[in-house]
Amino acid sequence: MTASGGRDSDTARIETFSDGVFAIAITLLIIEIGVPHVVGTESLFDKLVRLWPSYLGYAISFLVIGTVWANHHNRFRLISRSDHILLFLNIVFLMCVAFIPFPTALLADYLSGTDKHRTTAVAVYSGTLAVTAIFFTILWLYAAGNYRLVDRAIDPLLLRAMTRRYVVGMLLYILAFALAFFSAAASLALIVILALIFVLPEPEGPRRRSVRR
Amino acid sequence: MTASGGRDSDTARIETFSDGVFAIAITLLIIEIGVPHVVGTESLFDKLVRLWPSYLGYAISFLVIGTVWANHHNRFRLISRSDHILLFLNIVFLMCVAFIPFPTALLADYLSGTDKHRTTAVAVYSGTLAVTAIFFTILWLYAAGNYRLVDRAIDPLLLRAMTRRYVVGMLLYILAFALAFFSAAASLALIVILALIFVLPEPEGPRRRSVRR
Amino acid sequence: MTASGGRDSDTARIETFSDGVFAIAITLLIIEIGVPHVVGTESLFDKLVRLWPSYLGYAISFLVIGTVWANHHNRFRLISRSDHILLFLNIVFLMCVAFIPFPTALLADYLSGTDKHRTTAVAVYSGTLAVTAIFFTILWLYAAGNYRLVDRAIDPLLLRAMTRRYVVGMLLYILAFALAFFSAAASLALIVILALIFVLPEPEGPRRRSVRR
Amino acid sequence: MTASGGRDSDTARIETFSDGVFAIAITLLIIEIGVPHVVGTESLFDKLVRLWPSYLGYAISFLVIGTVWANHHNRFRLISRSDHILLFLNIVFLMCVAFIPFPTALLADYLSGTDKHRTTAVAVYSGTLAVTAIFFTILWLYAAGNYRLVDRAIDPLLLRAMTRRYVVGMLLYILAFALAFFSAAASLALIVILALIFVLPEPEGPRRRSVRR
Repeated sequence: MTASGGRDSDTARIETFSDGVFAIAITLLIIEIGVPHVVGTESLFDKLVRLWPSYLGYAISFLVIGTVWANHHNRFRLISRSDHILLFLNIVFLMCVAFIPFPTALLADYLSGTDKHRTTAVAVYSGTLAVTAIFFTILWLYAAGNYRLVDRAIDPLLLRAMTRRYVVGMLLYILAFALAFFSAAASLALIVILALIFVLPEPEGPRRRSVRR
Repeated sequence: MTASGGRDSDTARIETFSDGVFAIAITLLIIEIGVPHVVGTESLFDKLVRLWPSYLGYAISFLVIGTVWANHHNRFRLISRSDHILLFLNIVFLMCVAFIPFPTALLADYLSGTDKHRTTAVAVYSGTLAVTAIFFTILWLYAAGNYRLVDRAIDPLLLRAMTRRYVVGMLLYILAFALAFFSAAASLALIVILALIFVLPEPEGPRRRSVRR
Repeated sequence: MTASGGRDSDTARIETFSDGVFAIAITLLIIEIGVPHVVGTESLFDKLVRLWPSYLGYAISFLVIGTVWANHHNRFRLISRSDHILLFLNIVFLMCVAFIPFPTALLADYLSGTDKHRTTAVAVYSGTLAVTAIFFTILWLYAAGNYRLVDRAIDPLLLRAMTRRYVVGMLLYILAFALAFFSAAASLALIVILALIFVLPEPEGPRRRSVRR
Repeated sequence: MTASGGRDSDTARIETFSDGVFAIAITLLIIEIGVPHVVGTESLFDKLVRLWPSYLGYAISFLVIGTVWANHHNRFRLISRSDHILLFLNIVFLMCVAFIPFPTALLADYLSGTDKHRTTAVAVYSGTLAVTAIFFTILWLYAAGNYRLVDRAIDPLLLRAMTRRYVVGMLLYILAFALAFFSAAASLALIVILALIFVLPEPEGPRRRSVRR
């Protein structure tokens, strides 16, 4: 009897808690957008239009968190056991996900500002996503390495394809971070493309070793 | 094995996540209402009364999100499979739902303001609901078209009746948006009426084709 | 096939959604307490102590929402069917529950203020709870009247004892509202007592008619 | 039929509600970190760096709440019955957990301030965690004492080991509170160590009495 046990129901519990954190983090994004205050003869419409970086940040982060949720959930369907290290890695990973509303608000406030501030904001934003991707990859490598916590019946080719997928994804998020220092637009575009790609189908393949024998 | 799989348990997962987002978005509405600050001999009661647009916006949005939740949940009971496009359309749809607290706060701040600001606020509010209705309809058309993702046993007449219901609802929300430019009261009244209508029973009919043969 | 169906799984769905709203409303209470800002040689400790109305409001509202959650959940265990009116009454009831953080923040801001402001704040607070109790009672009367939506096997004496319990509770919350105009302390004390009483065991009795025959 | 019933499904219900509160409290931590506003030629990067106490507070509280969640959930797997006192103790315990975002924000604001303010902030922070640990221990002692609510088949040695674990943990949290008055760093370090220790495996042992006979 350990803090995370070692049974299927434990991974179910981790999933449910994680799903809650995802749903809340994604919905909290909106409260970072403040209603503009107009004075005198200012146009409310113009003020709302000038909030476009807030809407853009909201849309990108919503898409990113939604995609990360889908991938996280899928991975836990292959993970059949849990241990304390997985529990700990998952808490650290969720810590990154729940942090995303902060750099999103930062992006919204400074995307239309001076070049220097924009660079800082986009770097912090893409950097947060890169760190999130790094912890996701570590979590997966820990669980899948030597079939430590994944179902032993899964095809090793499939596991390897997934590992490749996550490592490449992680490297591209790090590239998005590096791009932030040259072009905010290029960095954000890469992030949107990555989110759209990761909603796409995963590498297919026979899921169970037995199938191949 | 794809990001959204293709089994019943996948639609269950999408539903649970969506329900979480609905529950949080509906409950977050309240934090947009700030406690008034009274100075000197001002009456707190008067200040609270003058917040009536906030209470009205809270009540309308609560009713709208509650109704949308009920309809979303019902539709997913007919959808028996999922794919990446459904997953993506659902994330975009939830992005609209989770956005609602922002135009609600806007409505609360400007409903009792000048005519021009009121028009802008009501147009943004009804426009958000119209866009939400559009994505809900697209999601349904995608899932129900050619029985793509819905249970094959469902009566085609029932599917058609539902499609009609959502298309008409969508057009009426677009009408509410158009009305906002002529009368804020008429626009909001239509929105309340639509919410009350959509809590009402849906078109009945034999649910399974087999029943009719 | 209606918006709320008519099967057990539908009341389960309403319960899950309601539980989500309760959990979020109870946890949102904390964000209404702002960290005090000290200037110069002011004591942070003193400033924190002076926030006592915030802590008191937090504790009372947490206790009240926790108790209402327990009672709501118990009632839905007896309700075996649902219809559109129940769905609608439940949304209105949840609208009251999710509203509680606002009067709680009001209470926190004005409990230590002038007599007049305190009276207003306590009246709005107790009034919100009274309205919540009224809708809870209406919901119960609707579901239990003529065994409309409750399990037909339940002992009529038990149903009547519960109805009495809720009607009396509602009247006492209305009394707490009336008391607010004479004594803030008495009104709040009654609210705390009511919350503690409603955590206590409910009227016992043979649950199933069959048991008595 | 009582407010908390007395069946397994009741502890499941308490668990689900508690999990919701944990997930929300942990995710709400981020909204206490405000985006810095830069004026003139100030560096946004410098301003972000100076927010380090906010990031530290966020990370510690996230780790603490995550650990408390894991322990709470594990304890309820041994608790097979519930009663009103457990329900009440659990609400009070959750009241402490949901309160954590407030002292976290306090810590973030005053950790880099004057010595006196820092002492106050760290004392309030560690004091909140100590009170949370006290209520967790009371809840456990109530449930486990004389096998009141736990599974009768559990080895008494295991129960005693767990009780020891929680009492020692509680004393160490109280020590962290006392340390706050001498060294903020030592107090926070102890809190982090405690969180890391409580993610570690619990005392093992034959879970069922029958095993030992």
